[in-house]
Amino acid sequence: MAQNIFLKPFYFIRHYRFKTTVIDGKSIANKILKDLKVAVQEHTDKKHRAPTLTAIIVGDDPSSKIYVKNKVKTAHFVGIKTEVLNFPDSISETKLIKTIQVLNSTKEVDSVLLQLPLPSHINPNIYELISPEKDVDGFTSANFGKFCLDKETIIPCTVLAVQKILQEINIDFTGKNALICGRSKHVGLPIAMLLHSNFKNAVKGFNANTIICHRFTPVDQLTKFCQNADVVITATGVPSLIRGYMVKKGSVIIDVGISRIIDPQSLKNKIVGDVNFEEVKEVAGFLTPVPGGVGPLTVAMLLQNTFTIARKRNP
Amino acid sequence: MAQNIFLKPFYFIRHYRFKTTVIDGKSIANKILKDLKVAVQEHTDKKHRAPTLTAIIVGDDPSSKIYVKNKVKTAHFVGIKTEVLNFPDSISETKLIKTIQVLNSTKEVDSVLLQLPLPSHINPNIYELISPEKDVDGFTSANFGKFCLDKETIIPCTVLAVQKILQEINIDFTGKNALICGRSKHVGLPIAMLLHSNFKNAVKGFNANTIICHRFTPVDQLTKFCQNADVVITATGVPSLIRGYMVKKGSVIIDVGISRIIDPQSLKNKIVGDVNFEEVKEVAGFLTPVPGGVGPLTVAMLLQNTFTIARKRNP
Repeated sequence: MAQNIFLKPFYFIRHYRFKTTVIDGKSIANKILKDLKVAVQEHTDKKHRAPTLTAIIVGDDPSSKIYVKNKVKTAHFVGIKTEVLNFPDSISETKLIKTIQVLNSTKEVDSVLLQLPLPSHINPNIYELISPEKDVDGFTSANFGKFCLDKETIIPCTVLAVQKILQEINIDFTGKNALICGRSKHVGLPIAMLLHSNFKNAVKGFNANTIICHRFTPVDQLTKFCQNADVVITATGVPSLIRGYMVKKGSVIIDVGISRIIDPQSLKNKIVGDVNFEEVKEVAGFLTPVPGGVGPLTVAMLLQNTFTIARKRNP
Repeated sequence: MAQNIFLKPFYFIRHYRFKTTVIDGKSIANKILKDLKVAVQEHTDKKHRAPTLTAIIVGDDPSSKIYVKNKVKTAHFVGIKTEVLNFPDSISETKLIKTIQVLNSTKEVDSVLLQLPLPSHINPNIYELISPEKDVDGFTSANFGKFCLDKETIIPCTVLAVQKILQEINIDFTGKNALICGRSKHVGLPIAMLLHSNFKNAVKGFNANTIICHRFTPVDQLTKFCQNADVVITATGVPSLIRGYMVKKGSVIIDVGISRIIDPQSLKNKIVGDVNFEEVKEVAGFLTPVPGGVGPLTVAMLLQNTFTIARKRNP
């Protein structure tokens, strides 16, 4: 019964459109950002100071710099003030701890973002020192525990991005099969939370039968799961992990992977996701591209989190 | 390759033994309790006071009283001192909060157990007020977040019980299919964590492809997942949810469900699990009974947690 309700719209798509709907993450993000800009303006019109976001980068990882630059640029568009603290790779753990403590106690700092990865001599548990109230990425165990247990908290931006895309597609996944590829603590795992739970209180979940696959899942088993999945969310960083023959016709494929490869034809650097886009766009019902899918939405959700925190701190 | 390693011992079992190995949870628990008794004795021999466990029961739920009575009796066996605070159903939230605060600040109280369920007029978030250091069930969001993110913490007793059983069976589930039925925040969800992750730091995980099913999973879909699962852990409270025809030959079936039913033949009360024991014992490789399977181990793990906390507080 439930299966019929689900399949009918895809049947329609398959026979009358033949093509996948490619989801334009940038458009959805732009709408969120425009709304956010208005909300921030209303907030500052009420004599509140502008929301602030402080980002910490350690070392010279070029990707980290690009990510943060992008976040800063978008923050300025919506009216969020930013500060970027660049530390050399050689920074001592003590200095980094002190920096976080100062940010925690500075009234004008609403949100703190510690850009990952950190150099190997820094204990990754340093993240836990960010005040949970200012932990804009929702990565501290205090916030993560609340999220898992469906209590009000700050939710990781990628989870909110995936949720937004699934809400836009507007399919009921209750009792349907959802596959998440990748079990990282910041992306795969919290997305598995979103997919399987109802999340009555904290965030709308999807009540799906949820399958978690990872580096140890044999490819033939992954293929079987994928072929039976109504929605696949992949966050592994393995280019072309999801091939056309693995995808159920009409299913929803959301690609959270980001890899830099050298394009064999142009010999230029190229950013790709986990999904073989050319193959899968012939089969899937909905598909997000990389770049231009989940990425822009993640940035929008980060700024939405920043504003939520700021409003809570200055009601 | 990995699949062969896994299947061979079951092939052996199927052809030469024909019968399921029924796992005697009570024996495993007794061994843990005897070792614990020795460890507690050594601890108190060093002039430390005996570890203590304070249980709070609200209302007259007969099951709660039986559970707590059982925990108290076993605690005394291993040398853990207990105190049980019985409150009437009519207790105010304020009084309960004050009680928890007093226990948090009482030096002699090592562990606090708030027996669930609570009456409907008490906000279930009251649980969060238990000091994470004394939260012997590992249900506070602070502890749950750390568990999910693989940081050292107090882990829910049922998770430890399931882990112990799987360790006793001693099969490598890396890349195998694990099915968890039930997504409760205290049992199903943390067991899904155990199954899918490696948990390098906090607790040994199982690296399995993990499928989470729940009340919205259609029975035909549950059947398919179950038929392909190398290990099934069920925690739903639905008697006879797992039938013989649903089970893969030689697989491991762990039954965490507890339901009280009236036996149709004797017309007496009877405790059963989620698994149709008579049917499944003809098919599974390993099977836990109810009662006498996971239950006794959960109590043993609670006391192990109590001792771990006490040792940390009085090193």
